[in-house]
Amino acid sequence: MIATEVQAAQKRAQEVLRAAGIVLTAEEAAHIEVADMGLNRLAVEGLELVTYINNDRYCAKELVLFPGQTCPEHRHPAVDGKAGKQETFRCRAGEVWLYVEGEPASTIRARVPEAARKYYTVFHEIALRPGEQYTIPPDTLHWFQAGPEGAVVSEFSSPSTDENDIFTDPHIRRAAVVEN
Amino acid sequence: MIATEVQAAQKRAQEVLRAAGIVLTAEEAAHIEVADMGLNRLAVEGLELVTYINNDRYCAKELVLFPGQTCPEHRHPAVDGKAGKQETFRCRAGEVWLYVEGEPASTIRARVPEAARKYYTVFHEIALRPGEQYTIPPDTLHWFQAGPEGAVVSEFSSPSTDENDIFTDPHIRRAAVVEN
Repeated sequence: MIATEVQAAQKRAQEVLRAAGIVLTAEEAAHIEVADMGLNRLAVEGLELVTYINNDRYCAKELVLFPGQTCPEHRHPAVDGKAGKQETFRCRAGEVWLYVEGEPASTIRARVPEAARKYYTVFHEIALRPGEQYTIPPDTLHWFQAGPEGAVVSEFSSPSTDENDIFTDPHIRRAAVVEN
Repeated sequence: MIATEVQAAQKRAQEVLRAAGIVLTAEEAAHIEVADMGLNRLAVEGLELVTYINNDRYCAKELVLFPGQTCPEHRHPAVDGKAGKQETFRCRAGEVWLYVEGEPASTIRARVPEAARKYYTVFHEIALRPGEQYTIPPDTLHWFQAGPEGAVVSEFSSPSTDENDIFTDPHIRRAAVVEN
C-alpha cells in the first residue's frame, strides 16, 4: 500500500465508526490499523482495526469492513502449549457474513475473492446483523466479508498475537508494508 | 426491589443504550441485569448490565449508569491461586468518574452515597469521557459514579465471577432479590 491509501482508509473507517456511534480519541483515530495482508488489494481483501486493549489476559478490538471487504481465511493455533485465540464477534452496524468449519451452505452470500479463490475452503455461513454475535473456537478456520452496507464488528477475545495467525493463502503477510 | 422497578430500569437502560447507538437483541433487552446490590436504593447505588460473553478466557459487558448512579466500592481478589479479575473500562457515552487506590483527589467530583459513606475509602479519581478508557489491575479497590448525563461503559475483562467480588459494604448482596 502507499501512504495515501492508508490515510484514506483510516479516514473512511473513522467516518464509519462515527456513524455507528463509536467514539475514538484523536490518538486512536490517527492510528487506525489498515491491514491489506500484503496483497495490495485492500478493497477486496483486508480490514481496518482499532485495538482498545490487548494484554496477557484479554483483548478487545473494533473491526471495520467496507462494503464487500473480506478478511481472508485464517486460524489461531495453539502456541507454546496454550490454546489458540478464541474470538467473539459482535456485529454493531451493517452486516457481516462469517464462514467457519462445518456443514457448508449450499450457496453462500459472500463473493469469494477471485484472485485467491483456492485459499477459501470453509463455507459454513453465519450472518450477523447488529446485536448478533458468534464465538469462534480456537484453531478454527474462518473468514468474513461485509455485506453491501459494510460492517462494524466488536471483537472480544483471549490475547491477540497476530504473528501466530496462520492464513490459508501463503502470499499473506499480516504486518502492513507502507510505501511513500 | 420489586418487579416493576426492575422492569422500569430495564426499559430505561435499553433506551440509554439505543441512544448511544448500541443495539441489543430482543432476548438481551429482556434480560438486562438490574443490580441494586441488595441495598434497595437503585437510583443511588446500583447499575444495569448486559453481559455479551463470559467464558473461561474473557468477558465483555455493557454497563449502564443512570445520572448520579454509583457502583459501590469493591475488589476482585485472586481465587484458587489465579489472579483476580482485571477490567478495562471504556466510556461510550456520558461521563463516568472512577475511583481507585492511589493518591486521593483533593476534592472529588462524585457525591459519595450518604447512607454508606464509610464504605467508600478510595478516592484517586479518573474521569472518563467517550473514547477514554482505564484498566483496573486485579484486587484493586474501585467504585464509580455517572455524571449528570449518566454513562454507558464497555467493560472488557478476564472472566467474571461475581460471587467472588468483595464489597467494602458488608450489607451488599450482589445477586438481585426481586419481589413481586
